[in-house]
Amino acid sequence: MINYNPKDWFTFIFHVHKGDTIRKLWPLMLSVSIFSAFVAFLELNIFKLSKSDYVSNIGMMHSLLGFVISMLLVFRTNTSYDRWWDGRKLLGSLTNVSRNFAMKVKALKLNEEDIRFFEYGIPKYGFALKEHLREKLYFGKNSFLIEVEASKHIPNQIASSMISKLYDLTSKGFISQEQLIVLTNDVNQFTDICGGCERIKNTPIPFSYSAFIKKFIFIYVLTIPIGWVFSLGYYLVLIVPFILYVLASLELIAEEIENPFGEDANDLPVDQICNNIEKHVEEILG
Amino acid sequence: MINYNPKDWFTFIFHVHKGDTIRKLWPLMLSVSIFSAFVAFLELNIFKLSKSDYVSNIGMMHSLLGFVISMLLVFRTNTSYDRWWDGRKLLGSLTNVSRNFAMKVKALKLNEEDIRFFEYGIPKYGFALKEHLREKLYFGKNSFLIEVEASKHIPNQIASSMISKLYDLTSKGFISQEQLIVLTNDVNQFTDICGGCERIKNTPIPFSYSAFIKKFIFIYVLTIPIGWVFSLGYYLVLIVPFILYVLASLELIAEEIENPFGEDANDLPVDQICNNIEKHVEEILG
Amino acid sequence: MINYNPKDWFTFIFHVHKGDTIRKLWPLMLSVSIFSAFVAFLELNIFKLSKSDYVSNIGMMHSLLGFVISMLLVFRTNTSYDRWWDGRKLLGSLTNVSRNFAMKVKALKLNEEDIRFFEYGIPKYGFALKEHLREKLYFGKNSFLIEVEASKHIPNQIASSMISKLYDLTSKGFISQEQLIVLTNDVNQFTDICGGCERIKNTPIPFSYSAFIKKFIFIYVLTIPIGWVFSLGYYLVLIVPFILYVLASLELIAEEIENPFGEDANDLPVDQICNNIEKHVEEILG
Amino acid sequence: MINYNPKDWFTFIFHVHKGDTIRKLWPLMLSVSIFSAFVAFLELNIFKLSKSDYVSNIGMMHSLLGFVISMLLVFRTNTSYDRWWDGRKLLGSLTNVSRNFAMKVKALKLNEEDIRFFEYGIPKYGFALKEHLREKLYFGKNSFLIEVEASKHIPNQIASSMISKLYDLTSKGFISQEQLIVLTNDVNQFTDICGGCERIKNTPIPFSYSAFIKKFIFIYVLTIPIGWVFSLGYYLVLIVPFILYVLASLELIAEEIENPFGEDANDLPVDQICNNIEKHVEEILG
Amino acid sequence: MINYNPKDWFTFIFHVHKGDTIRKLWPLMLSVSIFSAFVAFLELNIFKLSKSDYVSNIGMMHSLLGFVISMLLVFRTNTSYDRWWDGRKLLGSLTNVSRNFAMKVKALKLNEEDIRFFEYGIPKYGFALKEHLREKLYFGKNSFLIEVEASKHIPNQIASSMISKLYDLTSKGFISQEQLIVLTNDVNQFTDICGGCERIKNTPIPFSYSAFIKKFIFIYVLTIPIGWVFSLGYYLVLIVPFILYVLASLELIAEEIENPFGEDANDLPVDQICNNIEKHVEEILG
Repeated sequence: MINYNPKDWFTFIFHVHKGDTIRKLWPLMLSVSIFSAFVAFLELNIFKLSKSDYVSNIGMMHSLLGFVISMLLVFRTNTSYDRWWDGRKLLGSLTNVSRNFAMKVKALKLNEEDIRFFEYGIPKYGFALKEHLREKLYFGKNSFLIEVEASKHIPNQIASSMISKLYDLTSKGFISQEQLIVLTNDVNQFTDICGGCERIKNTPIPFSYSAFIKKFIFIYVLTIPIGWVFSLGYYLVLIVPFILYVLASLELIAEEIENPFGEDANDLPVDQICNNIEKHVEEILG
Repeated sequence: MINYNPKDWFTFIFHVHKGDTIRKLWPLMLSVSIFSAFVAFLELNIFKLSKSDYVSNIGMMHSLLGFVISMLLVFRTNTSYDRWWDGRKLLGSLTNVSRNFAMKVKALKLNEEDIRFFEYGIPKYGFALKEHLREKLYFGKNSFLIEVEASKHIPNQIASSMISKLYDLTSKGFISQEQLIVLTNDVNQFTDICGGCERIKNTPIPFSYSAFIKKFIFIYVLTIPIGWVFSLGYYLVLIVPFILYVLASLELIAEEIENPFGEDANDLPVDQICNNIEKHVEEILG
Repeated sequence: MINYNPKDWFTFIFHVHKGDTIRKLWPLMLSVSIFSAFVAFLELNIFKLSKSDYVSNIGMMHSLLGFVISMLLVFRTNTSYDRWWDGRKLLGSLTNVSRNFAMKVKALKLNEEDIRFFEYGIPKYGFALKEHLREKLYFGKNSFLIEVEASKHIPNQIASSMISKLYDLTSKGFISQEQLIVLTNDVNQFTDICGGCERIKNTPIPFSYSAFIKKFIFIYVLTIPIGWVFSLGYYLVLIVPFILYVLASLELIAEEIENPFGEDANDLPVDQICNNIEKHVEEILG
Repeated sequence: MINYNPKDWFTFIFHVHKGDTIRKLWPLMLSVSIFSAFVAFLELNIFKLSKSDYVSNIGMMHSLLGFVISMLLVFRTNTSYDRWWDGRKLLGSLTNVSRNFAMKVKALKLNEEDIRFFEYGIPKYGFALKEHLREKLYFGKNSFLIEVEASKHIPNQIASSMISKLYDLTSKGFISQEQLIVLTNDVNQFTDICGGCERIKNTPIPFSYSAFIKKFIFIYVLTIPIGWVFSLGYYLVLIVPFILYVLASLELIAEEIENPFGEDANDLPVDQICNNIEKHVEEILG
Repeated sequence: MINYNPKDWFTFIFHVHKGDTIRKLWPLMLSVSIFSAFVAFLELNIFKLSKSDYVSNIGMMHSLLGFVISMLLVFRTNTSYDRWWDGRKLLGSLTNVSRNFAMKVKALKLNEEDIRFFEYGIPKYGFALKEHLREKLYFGKNSFLIEVEASKHIPNQIASSMISKLYDLTSKGFISQEQLIVLTNDVNQFTDICGGCERIKNTPIPFSYSAFIKKFIFIYVLTIPIGWVFSLGYYLVLIVPFILYVLASLELIAEEIENPFGEDANDLPVDQICNNIEKHVEEILG
């Protein structure tokens, strides 16, 4: 995620940031511009068509479908943003659960070794989840405290060993049955958060919508010059790419934020969140 | 579900995928194209109507109702997508509950036979639910561990035998009363998930909306050529089918994803989710 | 609810179903058609007004307000659909709670008589709720197991006698304190569901919106012919009723599904849900 | 709240109900009508401007901003309705919690005096909340059972004395620790509901939106006659007030339902809900 | 937050309040006005272009993209408002939890000193959270009761010392295991609320949307005069700034309410909420 001061308008407008869609779209915009010039040349200079030809009214179709394409893009934007925000909430819950769990562990007054176990295990879950979502393996420092096998689901192994630890401590009499329930529930929330993140990561918008929106934008933009050339002439070489920029940017940003756990410009600050968890858990249990 | 790289635009645009709506719509589009040609021929060549006739202004109605039809389609899209995503969340919960339940069972340190019971029963619930939603029967391998009757609701029978097992283990002293509450709650969540999926599967959008949207699209598209023929002439044979393609595609995709538990191109990866549950439960309890 | 195959377009379009809004709207559409003819006759043949008169531009108002009316109808549609779907979720929860409660009762291994009490009482709650929402009384078969007074709130009485039964069984030692909490919670959910359904049934959309939307549609449609007659002549007798059909249908369907517990064509399958609960509870406890 | 039969269209349309916005808007509509006449007189008769003057195209701005104003009004409508419905849900929860709490109190088989305490205290909370939200004091009949001080937060005092009663009964052995948790949770829900209602009552939509929407509507409507006079002449004296009526009604209704706990025509049936709670609690505990 | 009577329209319209966007936008509006005059002068007086030039039809692009820009602004408005309202809910929960926690502490009949601890600690959490969200440090009066280190997360330290206190009281026998669970859960909710507020504060809308919307508004508004000059002449110097005012105001308000915990005109009444918590907790425990 890029940190920015949201009130600084002018920088936004004239500076092309790292995450700017124009960086990805300019080759397409250039092609569309050339295509528009070609259409204009064909219709105006070769076939010498005029405003009285039927072809000049094709813009009627674009007006009629203008609503539909706008609404589809808003639908796309909303659903992607919801996933992004949903992912942010899940990572927020990870922070909350980690802190609450640590506070309870502290209050239990366990012996030093067991406190170290949780001081190590709680932030480890966060880091392991982060790498799991980025399809990397994670073992972490001091990994002898909780041993994991690379071939199995790593966050699950960490959660499972924390739950086993809790049951152990209960059977040894350090934790009461009632406390066990509450503490187990916290570890279960870790797994729920993991499942929620996996869901967001593994389920893009239904294929049909994605394909349909792209096909629709493409045909819509490429047919604009055919009818508008009689009103706008060679100005089309600027106008059509701008329309493409607007429509395709929305689709592009939506695609990018749909999976918010990566390392793209707009992705969530997963690393920072994990570091915060580690810091806070150390503050509480240290 | 089709796996795809969402950034690969050109493949999308020029390739007609398995789930593409054009595969279902081309006969209708062809008919509408022929109908448009027929209307154009009638109005232009037989009746020799002109732009000064009242009939040429029928497009005013299409402009006015253009908002309404767009918004209806967005309403349709939103509600279908919400069901699809709701279904995805339910299947995600199934994964989470299965894992959490397995972790707790592991921590209980039951004897081998009882662990096998749950290692078998937890993923079995997922598979049974999958087949139940597809209206097939499911018995599964090693079915002697949990016997089910085909004439009764199969997921219910599995959940019920797991609950009875838990109460048994409690009365034998292997599980405390407090743990029993937590474990029973997990099995209840299985049944809640089953009920949620049944709700999505059995409740399509209210009949009146479905019928009204189809009637509206049909009348809307078929009356377009009547008024537009004076502006667009025989280009209608391309334009009207395209408008139909856009409007009807949205309705078609919405219909398809409304029930997301089947085996259509856009349906949820139910099989993969069930296999993952089996894999993870085995990892935890194995 | 009408069961239908959502992919069967043509039946939808040409067949006028039981729940079709045209059945209720045709008298209004006919009146509007006659009114349009009258306006056209007056303006064109009596006053002999022409396109250069100011009156011919009244359509500008209709274009400007076209957005507002579309968005209001979408707002109306969304809120009604949300209630309908909310009602469906509540009935789904009723199914889930009934099943979960029955499974736990089974696992308790109570004596035969007490099992019969719950096998009778759980589905009875569903049936009583159904009749309560339709403002009928319900006593049910074998009503001697749970006696209810017609003058009091019937679902409450059933829930209250189930809770009292649970406390009784606890004081007799058949149910532990921990189990009592969980079981009481299930019965409380019955009452929550009942309260949720009563809320949907008793709270229509705020009166002002309902009145405003109807006034707006009415004035909007009746003023259309005044300005459009110069562009569309006597075609108005077809076009204005169609616009009315579209706008008023949305309001009509919204009204119908707003209270989804009745016996209208689009209402929820309450009877079927209650029968399913009875069947499943019998399967579990039988 | 006005009770009405939502299917009775004609009464709606021709009858001006108590809650009708036209009652509040007619002075403003009249002023705008006179203003429009004045503008028309000025432009047409004094300055004798014509359609070829630049001023006649000011309507372009109104078309362009027509989307924005519609969407802002829908945003306003949605957020107000959400608060109204949110308030309704909170009052529904009040009913549910009151019933569930009473059922559990009944099942506890306390002695007569303690049952009277709760039979008195539960509905008293509802009434006290109602008056609290209307900024009145409430003491209620038999107030000696729960004494409250007028200078302190009254619902809090009632909730606090119920919780203290529960802890008392626990320390006397009438209620088990497990039941105490469940019963305390019910009383906590009362306070949560109170907090939710206070939140809705005390937090109108951000000031900037409220001010911006009003400014925007005002400038938008007052500039319409300037450009439209050349197309519509003196018909403006009817059309401009109607546009104002539509836009301002939405803002007015939104304002009214934003705080739904008062005694306005569209407010929630708070009195009826409180009376129902009293009736049901008496039925259960009586 | 500015307190206002939402029904007082005229003050709104003619008074420029403290939070009014025009205060921030007038320099930009003035620049755009001058730019429009310059464009008009160039096209009309220098190049002497006329309505028959292609350039006069550039407004077609603005009509087509009018939908998209409106919908983007509504998306922006909705997401910002959701955060604002979400923040308000979190602060409402803070009030609820504080009250409920205090009521339970009162009912426990602890000794005077322990009651003072919580009477001090509960409101202290609120104040500390407030300052934490404004990136200030907070120690509070009587800080010797709960000592905090400035270098660590202050709300966490307060919550942690409350949890430790609860466990202490439990091990001394003043609180039962069951009550401990409930009370710990309340303190955990404090941390959840803190996490929720931090999430809202630290996560602005994805950078790409923010940059894209600003770029889009800027280019859109600056290209309007190019095409509209032939219809509106020098009236542009009033119309273009007004369009900018409408579009940019929505973006500005959205930016302001996105982080609602500050001290801006539209921010939430955080101070008042904290004072209320202190007052109510004192009323309950005093």
